[in-house]
Amino acid sequence: MKFKGNEYRTIWFDGQYVKIIDQTKLPHKFEIITLKSVLDAAKAIKDMQVRGAGLIGVTAAYGMYLAALEEMDLNKASKILLATRPTAANLKHAVNVQLKNASTNALAKVALKIAQKLAEEDFEMCRSIGKHGFKIINKLKQPVNIMTHCNAGWLAFVDYGSATAPIYEAFNKGINLHVWVSETRPRNQGALTAWELNEQGVRNTFITDNASGHLMQRGMVDMVIVGADRVVSNGDVANKIGTYMKAVVANDNKVPFYVAFPSTTIDWDTRAGKDIPIEQRSADEVKFLNKSKITDSDAVNYAFDVTPARLITGFITDKGIIKPNELSGIR
Amino acid sequence: MKFKGNEYRTIWFDGQYVKIIDQTKLPHKFEIITLKSVLDAAKAIKDMQVRGAGLIGVTAAYGMYLAALEEMDLNKASKILLATRPTAANLKHAVNVQLKNASTNALAKVALKIAQKLAEEDFEMCRSIGKHGFKIINKLKQPVNIMTHCNAGWLAFVDYGSATAPIYEAFNKGINLHVWVSETRPRNQGALTAWELNEQGVRNTFITDNASGHLMQRGMVDMVIVGADRVVSNGDVANKIGTYMKAVVANDNKVPFYVAFPSTTIDWDTRAGKDIPIEQRSADEVKFLNKSKITDSDAVNYAFDVTPARLITGFITDKGIIKPNELSGIR
Repeated sequence: MKFKGNEYRTIWFDGQYVKIIDQTKLPHKFEIITLKSVLDAAKAIKDMQVRGAGLIGVTAAYGMYLAALEEMDLNKASKILLATRPTAANLKHAVNVQLKNASTNALAKVALKIAQKLAEEDFEMCRSIGKHGFKIINKLKQPVNIMTHCNAGWLAFVDYGSATAPIYEAFNKGINLHVWVSETRPRNQGALTAWELNEQGVRNTFITDNASGHLMQRGMVDMVIVGADRVVSNGDVANKIGTYMKAVVANDNKVPFYVAFPSTTIDWDTRAGKDIPIEQRSADEVKFLNKSKITDSDAVNYAFDVTPARLITGFITDKGIIKPNELSGIR
Repeated sequence: MKFKGNEYRTIWFDGQYVKIIDQTKLPHKFEIITLKSVLDAAKAIKDMQVRGAGLIGVTAAYGMYLAALEEMDLNKASKILLATRPTAANLKHAVNVQLKNASTNALAKVALKIAQKLAEEDFEMCRSIGKHGFKIINKLKQPVNIMTHCNAGWLAFVDYGSATAPIYEAFNKGINLHVWVSETRPRNQGALTAWELNEQGVRNTFITDNASGHLMQRGMVDMVIVGADRVVSNGDVANKIGTYMKAVVANDNKVPFYVAFPSTTIDWDTRAGKDIPIEQRSADEVKFLNKSKITDSDAVNYAFDVTPARLITGFITDKGIIKPNELSGIR
């Protein structure tokens, strides 16, 4: 995707190490940093310099390469990486692919090849999500008003994004559309979505999370597309905290509610949403607003919630559009 | 209510002018300011130095007194005050009571008496809301987990609050309870609720608005109590943006959803929620986080939304607990 007119991916191999865009600095500053070790990669995931289902996975895959480069035991490296964030399914997928294909004394070049293949697959899957999702948007009356949540944009993947892929595809094909971007407290990652949409030239309006319901109630939203951090076998979806509320409200207003994700986000081993571990992050993310403390109370900070399959109109995947109860069909 | 152990109301007559607590400074600073003119009163309402259904009404009533003191035409004064905020029903009620009882050349002491009577009524109504609401809380298994939204606390009224009145009553009667306080973007007035609960010693936990759904889904909320800025004759309720989302989610999880308000918040002249004017505030409230700009996108800032009567378990009023469809019974 573009930044100031130049094409970027969110992560790339620089000939020796791995480069990422530090997303904690966005949208204020566009800063590229270098990951030189598995600990650098783990820190980048944990501190959310990279975030989003796909990008966490690919960063972990490159982390395994960096571990091999350091001649660290890959089982040890996998444990370090898996401990960073508990909810994202793609993280586990990427680390497992690396472990399966590389022995503990694997050459770094094997691990690098696998990481690059995973990055390329992520790229292709998101492009495919865009093509499938376009068909849904293309049927709606223009201008099409699409609501999203958090950032399931190109910043959350290698390129294109999941929820944003159909939006970019439709925009590039000349569909008149407008995106409602909700802030997504506590980390305001909606601001990342607004930033990337602005860079691509897609019309969008920023709202508080609280305003989502009002807009749907007043007929100002034609569809909702969100991403997913983990989809389990019964069709329940873990995604950024607040997603469930949007789904319930969409349901109350008969607004179609879609979840877009690459098939690597599916966790076939977990049956239902209630079995997904929900990451709790530091209470300070809630208690502080831009470094200023707003409350002396205790706080809790669940990073994700679970949207039950019954509230989801459809899944937009790289393998096509499916109903939540048809998930096993793409296994 | 108490601040550092001393009893305060949110507004009082100082022998000549009117004193308020500047709520834009809370919870960081407890600052008392003096309103000396109707323009001071209008500014205090518009800039949200005072906010909340009841307190807006009482401040407007005192504003009419200040106008009389300045020998301003009271019709002119009423227009200035009514133009400050379009959604709150109590504002209109208070101004109309003043206009009905005072001629254009009313003595200031008549207007003062009326303002003081309205303040006293607000005080008594909130106390009564507390007593009625207590009966609901008293039936629940302890510890009782209550969720609220925004600040419908003592800061929003002369004392006690609406949504908080049953909480304070139950707390004072020794009920073991805990309050989930949601931040309430964009103005984070949940921080006011957390502050006042802390001052009274009521256990509470601060959350993002996005987390409300997850907590209800996981059985961590026994009831929701919110306030109201305007209740119309079919039982629909306008309240702080995000209230509707909490109501839909409470409904999805069979969590009882109560709205607490004094009968002065009822607008009998408006039939349905769709007819309530929804105030739009400055987009900068959404685009800036604690003075730092987080997005270059456009933003919209609806201050209220409408919760339809069908989602409301009951109204907790000064006249007792009623079902939304029984509203006409307390006219």
